[in-house]
Amino acid sequence: MSIATALDALSLFLGQRLSRSKHDLDQHGASEAHYRAAPPDAVAYPTTTEEVAQIVRTCAEHDCPVIGYGAGTSLEGHTAAIRGGVTVDFAQMNKVLEVRPEDMTVTVQPGITRMTLNEELRATGLFFPVDPGADASIGGMAATRASGTTTVRYGTMRDNVLGLEAVLADGRVIRTGGQARKSSAGYDLTGLMVGSEGTLGLITELTLRLHGQPEAVSSGVCAFDSFEGAVQAVIETIQSGIPMARIEFVDADTARAFNLYAKMDLPETPHLMIEFHGSDAAVAEQSERFGEIAEANGGQGFRWSTKEEERRALWSLRHNAYYAIIGLEKGARGLVTDICVPISRLAEAVEETRADIAASSIQGPILGHVGDGNFHAILLVHPDRPGDLDEAKRLSHQMVERSLRLGGTCTGEHGIGIGKLDYMTAEHGPGWDVMGELKRALDPKGILNPGKVIRQN
Amino acid sequence: MSIATALDALSLFLGQRLSRSKHDLDQHGASEAHYRAAPPDAVAYPTTTEEVAQIVRTCAEHDCPVIGYGAGTSLEGHTAAIRGGVTVDFAQMNKVLEVRPEDMTVTVQPGITRMTLNEELRATGLFFPVDPGADASIGGMAATRASGTTTVRYGTMRDNVLGLEAVLADGRVIRTGGQARKSSAGYDLTGLMVGSEGTLGLITELTLRLHGQPEAVSSGVCAFDSFEGAVQAVIETIQSGIPMARIEFVDADTARAFNLYAKMDLPETPHLMIEFHGSDAAVAEQSERFGEIAEANGGQGFRWSTKEEERRALWSLRHNAYYAIIGLEKGARGLVTDICVPISRLAEAVEETRADIAASSIQGPILGHVGDGNFHAILLVHPDRPGDLDEAKRLSHQMVERSLRLGGTCTGEHGIGIGKLDYMTAEHGPGWDVMGELKRALDPKGILNPGKVIRQN
Repeated sequence: MSIATALDALSLFLGQRLSRSKHDLDQHGASEAHYRAAPPDAVAYPTTTEEVAQIVRTCAEHDCPVIGYGAGTSLEGHTAAIRGGVTVDFAQMNKVLEVRPEDMTVTVQPGITRMTLNEELRATGLFFPVDPGADASIGGMAATRASGTTTVRYGTMRDNVLGLEAVLADGRVIRTGGQARKSSAGYDLTGLMVGSEGTLGLITELTLRLHGQPEAVSSGVCAFDSFEGAVQAVIETIQSGIPMARIEFVDADTARAFNLYAKMDLPETPHLMIEFHGSDAAVAEQSERFGEIAEANGGQGFRWSTKEEERRALWSLRHNAYYAIIGLEKGARGLVTDICVPISRLAEAVEETRADIAASSIQGPILGHVGDGNFHAILLVHPDRPGDLDEAKRLSHQMVERSLRLGGTCTGEHGIGIGKLDYMTAEHGPGWDVMGELKRALDPKGILNPGKVIRQN
Repeated sequence: MSIATALDALSLFLGQRLSRSKHDLDQHGASEAHYRAAPPDAVAYPTTTEEVAQIVRTCAEHDCPVIGYGAGTSLEGHTAAIRGGVTVDFAQMNKVLEVRPEDMTVTVQPGITRMTLNEELRATGLFFPVDPGADASIGGMAATRASGTTTVRYGTMRDNVLGLEAVLADGRVIRTGGQARKSSAGYDLTGLMVGSEGTLGLITELTLRLHGQPEAVSSGVCAFDSFEGAVQAVIETIQSGIPMARIEFVDADTARAFNLYAKMDLPETPHLMIEFHGSDAAVAEQSERFGEIAEANGGQGFRWSTKEEERRALWSLRHNAYYAIIGLEKGARGLVTDICVPISRLAEAVEETRADIAASSIQGPILGHVGDGNFHAILLVHPDRPGDLDEAKRLSHQMVERSLRLGGTCTGEHGIGIGKLDYMTAEHGPGWDVMGELKRALDPKGILNPGKVIRQN
């Protein structure tokens, strides 16, 4: 009963698709964030659900940890093999299995990335809206309950996964949810798997809700005197029922970073970046009405456009914000924080965070998905200045404590992984114990992504 | 260790709020549907979460079943005390605790009904959209994952409960979710509780998403040559991204029932009833565009109006459909079926159901939430004709088998209760076992609403 025995058994049926090369192990044990590398003992590349089940059964027999792996873009150390074991990389399970245009659903394998999926959907007139920025895998996005810029209109992965297939810790294969758009038939196992970070099962197939590609899209950007004004504009827009497809906030420092990165001349003040989806008439009306609300709240120079080129430039800027920001200091990396508060407390949360960062020894521009109350500071850390990382961690910790005090959550969209475990008691109280009880019911040996999400024994 | 001992202990601290009157027991053991009465041994009326916890702790100590009870409008025998025990009636926990207009959320106790809640919200400019028809309690709606006419736009209870407080089987009180609009912090316990039908915990508080009362509402009705045409019109409308707030189908028999009930002269053919929410300009544009799509699919005489009086008349008709339909046969009651299929299979599912009913010995008009693929037949049953109920059950069984064959679910919105237990294996396979494992992890003694949702030992 050991990892070594498990690997011998696995290589018998996976052959070359069980890799033990140092390159593979290092790559799968590395983190996009600041976490210490934790390579697995082997990387498996299954091609079918049955193979995944066989891998898990074999690992269960030998008490060998099993860690699911998509595109490796997670930010909280979700894929770190902190107790060794086998990483199951879904790179070869990356197909679109079936598109149902009338149902506006698609069934995919977990390894497909969101951009590839949308490429494949292009001709159907449909698209998959969840957009966390990175070109993450759909399986990974479901496992971490990802969201992003379009959540204000289209929801998170929780809202867009209709059903899934998963391999449980004992190798059983279950199918949850289905093709129907809703159901009241028993416990919501789909919802339980979404956000469970590979600790309750490995997702091997997903059925997703799709949306019609909008007839027209308008995008715009607006400078504000103050962050409070920007937030107030967003609150009033939501309350007016004007359906924003994206509404993003960037602070003055981010505007400065954009100017340097893209040679622009934005006023170096807070900005909102906004998008509407609908008919030509609807997006025009919505843009105009948003402009009025923005102006009444100190917004200036709001311009909107339905031209694809201008829109692409705007969102490409937003999606490159990380690179623009780390470009502020040569050699810096970014530690990306992630909290989400009730929108009524957002202005307060951002202002206090700003003040903390200003009083610290490092820089940290702030930006976020303001319609959801979710924001990030990108804290600039120099690998050769050891104090930076500690300072960044201290600031991240302050942000989480503030979020919980204001009725928010320790993570809006990045997940728990190993990075946010310490906040689970404060956020959930006895609810965290319940998560552990569910985990032990479904994975009594604790082989699925050990050390993540739940309390460690 | 017995129910009697539990009742003695409960009456010590509940006093008059533990009722053992025959009237109370009969009322709480009765069913809105055709299920045999199953009265509890007592009815408790707690006023606080702590009292609920004390009730559950006492019952746990004595292995006494505990059944949650809201407005008693469930249709699948959810509240039947089939093993006796204590029914916990939330009638006295029916307050609005806090409205947060900027966050567009409200926190309520479970006993408040949806109509009362919306009355209390009226002045805020906000509303709670989930509308199952009956004036159900919010706690009960969450417990059964209710939905209804507005789901096509606003989602089900799954989408509109942000967080909750629940008392577990051992008396622990947990809080799930929160005030933030999204979170990636661990397992989705809110989603697990919603739809668990009181078998995992008793919901004692809920935080709900609210929506802005629309500036303008337009409603209309349209006759169709065929049901296929009506469904095709709905599919094309959804694919065009035209945001319908309600889209309801009624068949020719229902149109006939409406004519008799409300002295109208609708053509006795299939109809769609539709509603749009938005700005004046948006609802006008959407109504016109829907009219064009309807006409291209055999729709005739589509008229829409933004006048409140006309709109009220339309939806009052829809909400009284049950009474209009049972009015077709003097002395009849209705057995209401409930399936939900992928919308691509909806025309087929309805047509085959129509044919089955036509070939049967009873009548059964069909109507439903066509935007979700969810529909009901209201099967007319005479209490004094014993064959009717068997025939109705046979037809309901055929509908469920058809739904599962077409990739649908055995219940779109009514839940499992005791009525749909027999279909759980066919729908979920080993997923049903997993539900049982979760149940045993959280309620090892099986005291919470025994006999519902999960497999019985």
